[in-house]
Amino acid sequence: MTQPDPAHQTLPSQSGVTDLYFDFLCPYAWRGLELADVLRREHGLKFRLRHFSLVQGNHADNPDRKHPTWWLDGQVAGQGNESQASSLNAFLAGQAALKQPDDAAWAFTLGLSRAVHQPAEGRGRIDLRNDSDVRDVAAEGGLDLEQFEADLADQEALRAALHDDLQASASLGVFGTPTFHLPDGHIAYFRFANLVTEPGAALDLWNLYIRVLQDGARIETVKRAK
Amino acid sequence: MTQPDPAHQTLPSQSGVTDLYFDFLCPYAWRGLELADVLRREHGLKFRLRHFSLVQGNHADNPDRKHPTWWLDGQVAGQGNESQASSLNAFLAGQAALKQPDDAAWAFTLGLSRAVHQPAEGRGRIDLRNDSDVRDVAAEGGLDLEQFEADLADQEALRAALHDDLQASASLGVFGTPTFHLPDGHIAYFRFANLVTEPGAALDLWNLYIRVLQDGARIETVKRAK
Repeated sequence: MTQPDPAHQTLPSQSGVTDLYFDFLCPYAWRGLELADVLRREHGLKFRLRHFSLVQGNHADNPDRKHPTWWLDGQVAGQGNESQASSLNAFLAGQAALKQPDDAAWAFTLGLSRAVHQPAEGRGRIDLRNDSDVRDVAAEGGLDLEQFEADLADQEALRAALHDDLQASASLGVFGTPTFHLPDGHIAYFRFANLVTEPGAALDLWNLYIRVLQDGARIETVKRAK
Repeated sequence: MTQPDPAHQTLPSQSGVTDLYFDFLCPYAWRGLELADVLRREHGLKFRLRHFSLVQGNHADNPDRKHPTWWLDGQVAGQGNESQASSLNAFLAGQAALKQPDDAAWAFTLGLSRAVHQPAEGRGRIDLRNDSDVRDVAAEGGLDLEQFEADLADQEALRAALHDDLQASASLGVFGTPTFHLPDGHIAYFRFANLVTEPGAALDLWNLYIRVLQDGARIETVKRAK
C-alpha cells in the first residue's frame, strides 16, 4: 500500500493544485498555512488559499453541514458576536489580498494568522475587527496598499468571492481547518500540534499525510484519544 | 520525521503489547480486529483484546467521557434496549473467551465479530442477545466449551473484568473503536473502510498508522470530509 520513497522528495501525485481551506481564527489552520507556505516556497508545491468559516460551520442554524442556511458573507459588517465580526472582516481582507500576486497574498495571509496566533513580543493579539490593525499587517506583508484599499472598497465583489469559498467547502463537507483538498480528489482535515517549518520535515509530514489518504485501506480517521 | 523503512518490516518500537479497544457492534472495530489478527499471526506483534462500549460512551448520562455515571457492566442481563443488551451479552461472552489460550480467544472474538458484520452466506446476522447463537460461535472457534460454560456462569467475575476494560478506556479518553494503545503510550482511534488481510499490506498499514502517531509534528487528527 505504501512504498518507501527517498527522503525529501515530493510524491509524483502532487503536481496539481491543493486547495487549503482555513480560518484565520483557528490555531491549527495557522500551522497548516505555515506548512503549506514552506512546501510552496521550498518544494514548489502549489496551494490555493480558500476560506472556510468555523462560525458558519458551527452555527446553530446550520445543522446540515452541506446546506447552510446562515452564511457569514450575508452578515452586515460589524454585526454579530466578536467571532462572527472578526471572521468576516478578516476573510474580506483576505479576499482582497488574494487579488494580488501570490507571494504578497501569502505574506498577508500568514501575517494576519501570526498576528492572531503568534503575536510578536510586546504586541497584543490583533483585533481582527479593527481595520487599522489589519492595514498594518497589509503594509508589513508587502501588499500594494493602493490596490488593497481599492479592492477593499468593493465589498460586493469580496463577499461574492468569500461566498464561493464557503459554498465550495460546504459542498465538500469541510468541517474544520486546516482541510486540504488534494489534486487527486482526497480531502481531509489535518490537525497537528507542533509548528513545522524545517523544509525536510515539512515535506516528510506532507508525504505522510498524503500516504494516509492514498492508502488502499481507505483510512477515514486517525484521531487521538485524550 | 519519518524515515523510509524496508517494506514489510516491523518498526522497532513495536516490541511491547498494544491494547486494542473494540466493540462487537462496530463494523470498523471488526476491521481493526482482522488487521490485528494478521499482524499477530503473521508478524508476531502482540495485542491485548480490550472492551470499549459505544452504548456506554454515547449514553446520555455520560457527557463526561472520562467519568461515566452509567456503566454497561451494571446493567441487568436482558434489560435495556437492543444495542445495550447485545453489547453486554457479547462482552461477557468475550470476557469468558479471554480466559482461554490466545488463539482460541481470538478465534471466538473474530468469529463473533464476523457473525455480526460479515455473516456467512445463507446465515442471517447473529442476535448477540441469543445465548445459543453465541455458543454456536464458541463451538466453531475451538473454545473449550466446558470451561467456557463454567466461566460464563461466574457473571460477577466477567462483569468485574468488563468493568476494568470500561474503566481503563474511559480514563484514557477512548471515544470510538477500534482504538489502539501502543506500547510507547500513543493512543488513537483508527478507522479505515477496506478490510486488509494480506500480510504485507497489513504491516504497511500498521506502520503507516504508527508513523502518524510518532511524527514530530504531533498529528492529532486526520479525518476525511464527506
